[in-house]
Amino acid sequence: MLDFTKEYFKMVEKDVIVYAKTRLDFFDEDVELSCEEIGDGNLNYVFRLVDSKSGKSLIVKQAGPVARISDEFKVSPDRNRIESEILSLQHKLAPGFVPKMYHYDPIMNCCAMEDLSDHEIMRTALIKHKTFPLFADHITTFMVNTLLHTSDVVTEHKEKKELVKSFTNPELCEITEDLVYTEPFFDCERNDIFEGSREFIKEHIWNDEKLALETAKLKFEFMTHSQSLLHGDLHTGSIFIKEDSTKVIDPEFAFYGPAGYDVGNVVANLIFAYVNGKFTIEDDGERDKFLQYMEKTIREVIDLFTEKFLYGWDEHATERVATYPGFKEYYLDGLLRDTVAVTGLELCRRTIGIAGVKDIQVIKNEKDRVAAEKIVLSAGKTFILERDTIRTGDDFVKVVLNYASKVLKEA
Amino acid sequence: MLDFTKEYFKMVEKDVIVYAKTRLDFFDEDVELSCEEIGDGNLNYVFRLVDSKSGKSLIVKQAGPVARISDEFKVSPDRNRIESEILSLQHKLAPGFVPKMYHYDPIMNCCAMEDLSDHEIMRTALIKHKTFPLFADHITTFMVNTLLHTSDVVTEHKEKKELVKSFTNPELCEITEDLVYTEPFFDCERNDIFEGSREFIKEHIWNDEKLALETAKLKFEFMTHSQSLLHGDLHTGSIFIKEDSTKVIDPEFAFYGPAGYDVGNVVANLIFAYVNGKFTIEDDGERDKFLQYMEKTIREVIDLFTEKFLYGWDEHATERVATYPGFKEYYLDGLLRDTVAVTGLELCRRTIGIAGVKDIQVIKNEKDRVAAEKIVLSAGKTFILERDTIRTGDDFVKVVLNYASKVLKEA
Repeated sequence: MLDFTKEYFKMVEKDVIVYAKTRLDFFDEDVELSCEEIGDGNLNYVFRLVDSKSGKSLIVKQAGPVARISDEFKVSPDRNRIESEILSLQHKLAPGFVPKMYHYDPIMNCCAMEDLSDHEIMRTALIKHKTFPLFADHITTFMVNTLLHTSDVVTEHKEKKELVKSFTNPELCEITEDLVYTEPFFDCERNDIFEGSREFIKEHIWNDEKLALETAKLKFEFMTHSQSLLHGDLHTGSIFIKEDSTKVIDPEFAFYGPAGYDVGNVVANLIFAYVNGKFTIEDDGERDKFLQYMEKTIREVIDLFTEKFLYGWDEHATERVATYPGFKEYYLDGLLRDTVAVTGLELCRRTIGIAGVKDIQVIKNEKDRVAAEKIVLSAGKTFILERDTIRTGDDFVKVVLNYASKVLKEA
Repeated sequence: MLDFTKEYFKMVEKDVIVYAKTRLDFFDEDVELSCEEIGDGNLNYVFRLVDSKSGKSLIVKQAGPVARISDEFKVSPDRNRIESEILSLQHKLAPGFVPKMYHYDPIMNCCAMEDLSDHEIMRTALIKHKTFPLFADHITTFMVNTLLHTSDVVTEHKEKKELVKSFTNPELCEITEDLVYTEPFFDCERNDIFEGSREFIKEHIWNDEKLALETAKLKFEFMTHSQSLLHGDLHTGSIFIKEDSTKVIDPEFAFYGPAGYDVGNVVANLIFAYVNGKFTIEDDGERDKFLQYMEKTIREVIDLFTEKFLYGWDEHATERVATYPGFKEYYLDGLLRDTVAVTGLELCRRTIGIAGVKDIQVIKNEKDRVAAEKIVLSAGKTFILERDTIRTGDDFVKVVLNYASKVLKEA
């Protein structure tokens, strides 16, 4: 007889069925459950339960005892508490943009949440070159509502400090500090680079002292700037999407950090999708259509974010000094500077570091793959070094288009 | 029969004697204790116990149920836990520069610590125009050791995040946010201004939109930049001093914030002592001697801090990216920028806000008092607005000397 109330153990499919029947209040009495592990993330086991009688379905997500990305990364199972609390908070701040949470179990380190199987992982969908015209609108609402509203601009400062404390996330922050801000920028053993790009990386990334210095500044800003409660891992693999719905998942990296971290992650991963389209769509018309959609989406993510952020500030700022003339613009300027820099960091680290992205990896032709990597690395470096001047959606797109045409001309 | 083990109550002298005899292991069996309340701080009751037989003495410090500064400020008695923990940490990092802690009692919210009655409160001593040639050396060692060593430059990042969590201090930070960063810069009811200075304050501080904007930026940096474990209230009233010894006390405002906050507080309060000497020492030779000592001390606090900080960095930095060429200088530059700004904020808020300083208040002649306030407010404003360019001890002193001669010429 399985006992879920005493001590954590790693569940397999049949355990999850028993768990659902005995510990959850979701399915009917005469349920006929099947269960499948569908996880492809790095930190959790994700089970999908379906009742063949009612058709109802549910996700049970259990934290593994160690991170799946590699046995090297030991992460506290406390991240599931953080995930369940942050989902509640995100649900309150940005209703409709995160899955519903039904249950959290601190012993088994698992939670039960809305099944989003009618959605797709956005990265997968973009690699199939599907387009989602509402995405920029949805994601900017999600980001403004979560980032602005958890900051000292809106949240009462004592309450905000309690949130900072509650969402302190040392192990997962360490992963980001190492994998995003440190390892990609020197010849670190743990990097996973495409051999054809090694020379380019050596010359343009690892041998650039100025770039290294900027990454050091950004790493310290990441570690010390408790501005907003971030999602912390907001790439297209953390977004479930369908035509009329966008759901942000996997917030276990959540902590108080620079707000631009989330925005930059979104933009960088859209750029990966753009570059993927550039090299993998053979039909000219289809390619143009997809690239135009991606350009438009990148533009809109920045520009709608800016617009909604300023509007939300006027509507919701509670801090007296936040209403002083000029402060809102100063604050947004800093947030966008961080956005630009993180866009650059994410472009570099997903190409050089341990956690590559499918968008680039699926480019089969070696010459194309190298060209794609040159584009994202050159753009990435530019975003890091020129973060003081790039501000509008158009500025972002121009950097990418410039390198795309430059690299293709050279090839 | 007094019971100290059940529930907090506010002790008076005779209770403290019983407390010392029954709860502390400090005095001999046949002790003959006398007790006196000697506190002049705003948050705590401070009792001095003396054994007339052995001559041994001890301080017992108890948190009041509300802050003494005013009934408006309710502060958590948890600050005594923070104080006892931070004193242990400071003792480890900067041995000899904080009082020894013998005992902490979470129920009575009190602690027993080394009696420093052979020292004086530094502000009081400076108002008597005593000089302490070792002070700059001592305080810069204390600051570098506590500020550099608790930062991400030296402390392992996961451990640092636990320290940030442990020293989260919402109520006392709120006091600083309000009294230092907000209220002095508009015509707030709670301000306590010298009527003769009202017109000057109105014209040069409250009506300056550019200044207001800069204070807003600084307030947000204070609230969101978790750089170092600060003392948080490092003025000359928090320092016990004698010729060969400097002891930093009252760390109940401790929290993770911008390192320059502590350094700027020290410098601003030295400037108050300078201005006090300028207006209250009648003998020319004595005045010159004292002012030269104060100038030298201000210079040395900045320049020795800089020197020891860079040396300490080279010796102790553990973070890889902290060793990248140029990063140390960039980091110190930001720390000094914050120092300049906080010097300015402290000069303004101690003149305009609710917590005035004796150095200025004891200037009896009204014209002199107004002149003194014009000097510190003009210098204060300059430090806030020109924080990007003032860097050396000499730069600091020049700002003060310039306004001192300008204001005296106009008078």
